[in-house]
Amino acid sequence: MELTPDWIVGFVDGEGCFHVSLQKHPEMTVGHQVLPEFTVVQHERDIQVLYALKKHFGAGVVRRNHGERFAFRIRNLEGLAQVCEFFMKHPLKTKKHTDFRKFRQILLMMQERRHLTREGLLEIIEVALTMNSTTRPRLEEIRESLKLG
Amino acid sequence: MELTPDWIVGFVDGEGCFHVSLQKHPEMTVGHQVLPEFTVVQHERDIQVLYALKKHFGAGVVRRNHGERFAFRIRNLEGLAQVCEFFMKHPLKTKKHTDFRKFRQILLMMQERRHLTREGLLEIIEVALTMNSTTRPRLEEIRESLKLG
Repeated sequence: MELTPDWIVGFVDGEGCFHVSLQKHPEMTVGHQVLPEFTVVQHERDIQVLYALKKHFGAGVVRRNHGERFAFRIRNLEGLAQVCEFFMKHPLKTKKHTDFRKFRQILLMMQERRHLTREGLLEIIEVALTMNSTTRPRLEEIRESLKLG
Repeated sequence: MELTPDWIVGFVDGEGCFHVSLQKHPEMTVGHQVLPEFTVVQHERDIQVLYALKKHFGAGVVRRNHGERFAFRIRNLEGLAQVCEFFMKHPLKTKKHTDFRKFRQILLMMQERRHLTREGLLEIIEVALTMNSTTRPRLEEIRESLKLG
């Protein structure tokens, strides 16, 4: 299946997700690892589309998500840099564009290794908390503990 | 906002819906009216995209759906003919394409006025029951009553 840039933009405007989470990592000075990821979830019947996206970006994996739903997911920073380059060149048309810009901002901070300092991590959390318009109680909790520490 | 055909295909592959329902209509010989509709639902923050689709197809309305979600909806047959022409020229890439083909088949039957006969209506119901991979108990009920009648 051949995908055109415009089709990918339209499909990701509908189905894509730019997400940043934190994972406990006691060996790191700040105690947490930053995990940015780009995902597209589809019903099993459209797994072909997910593989076409994987081929297009030359990165990521296709894995079962929940039940009959599968996810195409890119987590490695090199692959995510490709994703950023693509959506800078071919901008999203929905408000997901705002999430993408914040996502990219976090990736750029990580490239500058700012996620390895308490101040940088706090900054990343502040940005992540304004993404995806959902509440993130766990992220808020980590923020408060970082502020205290 | 300018939409390209490929973007529209990608977005509808993700967010569009081709749906056929039946409504009681005692004045009609067969007792039911066939209601085909094409819809795209978005959160209020992306209502702009819905208006851009309305402009592109030159048909339909944008209305509040549930809570903060809005729907762009085309119900009139002339507008739906435009939709069919568009997606015949620019095919969907997901399995939604199959639903679209069935949707178009029903519209063509309606153009031939076959929905006004019991046999035609039964045929339409059979096709509609295989769309959108959800169960349609009410549609099945109508089918059974038509078979008896």
